[in-house]
Amino acid sequence: MEVGFLGLGIMGKAMSLNLLKHGFKVTVWNRTLSKCDELVEHGASVCESPAQVIKKCKYTIAMLSDPCAALSVVFDKDGVLDQICDGKGYIDMSTVDAETSLKINEAITGKGGRFVEGPVSGSKKPAEDGQLIILAAGDKALFEESIPAFDVLGKKSFFLGQVGNGAKMKLIVNMIMGSMMNAFSEGLVLADKSGLSSDTLLDILDLGAMTNPMFKGKGPSMNKSSYPPAFPLKHQQKDMRLALALGDENAVSMPVAAAANEAFKKARSLGLGDLDFSAVIEAVKFSRE
Amino acid sequence: MEVGFLGLGIMGKAMSLNLLKHGFKVTVWNRTLSKCDELVEHGASVCESPAQVIKKCKYTIAMLSDPCAALSVVFDKDGVLDQICDGKGYIDMSTVDAETSLKINEAITGKGGRFVEGPVSGSKKPAEDGQLIILAAGDKALFEESIPAFDVLGKKSFFLGQVGNGAKMKLIVNMIMGSMMNAFSEGLVLADKSGLSSDTLLDILDLGAMTNPMFKGKGPSMNKSSYPPAFPLKHQQKDMRLALALGDENAVSMPVAAAANEAFKKARSLGLGDLDFSAVIEAVKFSRE
Amino acid sequence: MEVGFLGLGIMGKAMSLNLLKHGFKVTVWNRTLSKCDELVEHGASVCESPAQVIKKCKYTIAMLSDPCAALSVVFDKDGVLDQICDGKGYIDMSTVDAETSLKINEAITGKGGRFVEGPVSGSKKPAEDGQLIILAAGDKALFEESIPAFDVLGKKSFFLGQVGNGAKMKLIVNMIMGSMMNAFSEGLVLADKSGLSSDTLLDILDLGAMTNPMFKGKGPSMNKSSYPPAFPLKHQQKDMRLALALGDENAVSMPVAAAANEAFKKARSLGLGDLDFSAVIEAVKFSRE
Amino acid sequence: MEVGFLGLGIMGKAMSLNLLKHGFKVTVWNRTLSKCDELVEHGASVCESPAQVIKKCKYTIAMLSDPCAALSVVFDKDGVLDQICDGKGYIDMSTVDAETSLKINEAITGKGGRFVEGPVSGSKKPAEDGQLIILAAGDKALFEESIPAFDVLGKKSFFLGQVGNGAKMKLIVNMIMGSMMNAFSEGLVLADKSGLSSDTLLDILDLGAMTNPMFKGKGPSMNKSSYPPAFPLKHQQKDMRLALALGDENAVSMPVAAAANEAFKKARSLGLGDLDFSAVIEAVKFSRE
Repeated sequence: MEVGFLGLGIMGKAMSLNLLKHGFKVTVWNRTLSKCDELVEHGASVCESPAQVIKKCKYTIAMLSDPCAALSVVFDKDGVLDQICDGKGYIDMSTVDAETSLKINEAITGKGGRFVEGPVSGSKKPAEDGQLIILAAGDKALFEESIPAFDVLGKKSFFLGQVGNGAKMKLIVNMIMGSMMNAFSEGLVLADKSGLSSDTLLDILDLGAMTNPMFKGKGPSMNKSSYPPAFPLKHQQKDMRLALALGDENAVSMPVAAAANEAFKKARSLGLGDLDFSAVIEAVKFSRE
Repeated sequence: MEVGFLGLGIMGKAMSLNLLKHGFKVTVWNRTLSKCDELVEHGASVCESPAQVIKKCKYTIAMLSDPCAALSVVFDKDGVLDQICDGKGYIDMSTVDAETSLKINEAITGKGGRFVEGPVSGSKKPAEDGQLIILAAGDKALFEESIPAFDVLGKKSFFLGQVGNGAKMKLIVNMIMGSMMNAFSEGLVLADKSGLSSDTLLDILDLGAMTNPMFKGKGPSMNKSSYPPAFPLKHQQKDMRLALALGDENAVSMPVAAAANEAFKKARSLGLGDLDFSAVIEAVKFSRE
Repeated sequence: MEVGFLGLGIMGKAMSLNLLKHGFKVTVWNRTLSKCDELVEHGASVCESPAQVIKKCKYTIAMLSDPCAALSVVFDKDGVLDQICDGKGYIDMSTVDAETSLKINEAITGKGGRFVEGPVSGSKKPAEDGQLIILAAGDKALFEESIPAFDVLGKKSFFLGQVGNGAKMKLIVNMIMGSMMNAFSEGLVLADKSGLSSDTLLDILDLGAMTNPMFKGKGPSMNKSSYPPAFPLKHQQKDMRLALALGDENAVSMPVAAAANEAFKKARSLGLGDLDFSAVIEAVKFSRE
Repeated sequence: MEVGFLGLGIMGKAMSLNLLKHGFKVTVWNRTLSKCDELVEHGASVCESPAQVIKKCKYTIAMLSDPCAALSVVFDKDGVLDQICDGKGYIDMSTVDAETSLKINEAITGKGGRFVEGPVSGSKKPAEDGQLIILAAGDKALFEESIPAFDVLGKKSFFLGQVGNGAKMKLIVNMIMGSMMNAFSEGLVLADKSGLSSDTLLDILDLGAMTNPMFKGKGPSMNKSSYPPAFPLKHQQKDMRLALALGDENAVSMPVAAAANEAFKKARSLGLGDLDFSAVIEAVKFSRE
């Protein structure tokens, strides 16, 4: 199977390498073209613009850094729109909001192309290991044709219906994550201030019905006040804001997520926005006594 | 090793059976004495009062239904205090508040006895399987002498320092649980009202860093609006109230737990107090549109 | 002094009548032109388009129903932009968001015109009585030249600096109002459910340091579950959302406003969006016991 | 009319002076007897114990500093209980919890005496001016007989039914006050961080439907970060905790009060407990950016 691949950042590079390793013929493009070199060593072809990749390949996957980059690759000169046409499929796996997805979808399908959004859950390590979770939505037939690629990239792919649903589902997952992180933080601080060991609390949680990889992974470093940014706090807060906006749209009252969001905002005001989102515990801890 | 055992409710019966199966000599007492019969069939001896059990055994474990029962067994006529004395150990594994534990501790040690509080995390099934988590505190030497019994009853026992710490640690664990349950409920409802499948959300959560036995165990029934009471909502709310009071004492501000507590109160006002605590999702769901 | 006046809804009609009564020469326009008749009886001239009003008058005031109407009057064919030019002043007193104000400001000043935004606090009655509070921002000189008109329309006008500040200040005032309304609602319900008279609570509040016209005005009807819409709940909730977004922008954590916002969302989900915002008390009241 | 008066602190002294000025014959007692001297100059008699005051007077008013003092004056040796009997009335105007009131009521009525609790709203100045608000409950006949005294001490007295209701009503009033103070604080901080003047916000609020003596009285000093303690923050937080507990008892969910309570707790953890409760704004303000 031959696929195009646009965007060779941390995620895109790992993903396109995986495709190459599993026997896909891959044609890559990246804004900084030199980044394509390593992929070429592993057998990839290179094109000089998104348009050329689309022209060459029936299926093209994109993994861009943000909504702005995702739009630019499609709409700019020599972009995807230049060459997209009947029979071609475009699969954007970048993390973007529903509105951006809908805009891209409209443009692509307006030219006869087919579109799937496929944001992923998981970061660098799962990308390298082909263990991403793919939250796809849009053109059902294209989704099914993409399964061989998805099976290489992720451990599981979901088809969620109309375009925008992938983005929404990801927001909801992240909202639960943000509230859970606050629940966890409050518990750790309460243990500590009550004269109990927050390390022992980790051990106890680990043995019970709430044990989960996030508590296990982040707890020990939180107890050491260390927050190397895996998922920056300001991005977590942005996702909570967007999830709350989704709730607003649908008249769903979510007081716990709202309280968690305000805690993340307090953490931002304490200058912690670029640290890992687990740094929200600092907003709980903060006191002068 | 010979132990006394006071209280043969669901938990106490399972625990004393486990001790018998592992070769302990067990002398039991229960307020309704007929409940002792099944234990006798498995080799237990019976006494007619807590006092007699204490008199006969060097170590006595209690597993009573609530603080009131825990106090009554100690302070009433023919109770534990009648016979407790130098060299005897009393291990109360009931779930009680720190204040009750401290009161019992004072009375026992005032008569020369030794005391360990040991509330457990886990309910019927883990009790039967000897898979409880034991949160012990009090007399360190007695704790160490009790380890052979704790090893039969639980998969892990923790020694948490002074009397009251066991009760406090349990409250903190339950507070995290209550906030997590709200985070989970809000996410499930948001998915549903946004046109996404809440069953698919369960599948996605299950594959990611937040996967945990509680979400897996409760999620499917919550999506079916079924809440058979494993841990009644009103008890969960009481624990959140007490955990917040502990935070009040130590000046720890916990806005997410406070919001979760108010959601549980709303659920109580909707008449859901006797259902499982996962029924809090009904308070999130409730709408007329 | 001669002024143009665009928009003769409930507010605009009352305001332009006041100007006429105080000796201003007023030229009016309204989308439905027949609405101008009553003004003509009181001495107003009429034009057939916003452009003609601008052409005729050095100063033009607008009072439109929403951001959409405010934009349309400026940017549509025969709109304000057609005739705005050096020396002319445009004063938009509609309630719009900061972004809309900034867009209009840019267009007006781009053609050499001068712009003041002047949203008001107060509704029908204060408009009729010339007792509005005017939250102006933008061109300082134009503001000063407008004072004779503002003195007729309101009891007090504030100049708040750059365009957008009027809109922001209004959001903040409404946010405080929304949180206060929730504080009040929770107190009334708590009194009632605790066996106390919520009418007596009103009397007590009225005698103390918290007495205010809103509690006095809305309390008695809230105790009768009556919510004739003076300010619709859905608009109050929208303002809280926008105020929270303003806090998000500036990293201000506002947990009480966030909780109040979620209560208004719950009220919306109960179908109360079109009632007065005091109907949020129904979301507090709601129970099955 | 002749009355006894127990407790000559700031409040009690002002109140008993008012009674003397209005022609009451007053017999006073205070734990530190020397504090009675000033009252004697104004015509009061003195007794050496609460019991003697009760013996001498048909009606005795108490104004003690806290529940502990209120209980001690009744139950200690030579206390109220020693002499209370048929026909005598005891009116405790101290601020105590419902439980303390009920305990005192039971003891007094058990000996044939009559009891009214009458906590007041208002502090030093209203006490001096006879402008307190009296929240009375208990024995209706005694309340009515006390009206001549209440009319001197307060501008209005309410009879609220059974003992405990006075204490509850006061908690509810203070809960509303605490939530309002948070609403106000968030608005002031949001104005400031959004580049608007928080002093101008005060002026705008003062002209609108939310104008109230508390905002007018506290706002200017809050904008100067000055919090001389009129009502200490830690007492406000305690009252919010007790009001939330009252809500818990009656299954009333109050998310806004709960969020406000957590903000007061955060303020306590910042070391602000002894300042005025308006210092909660510091918890909102706090940031590092």
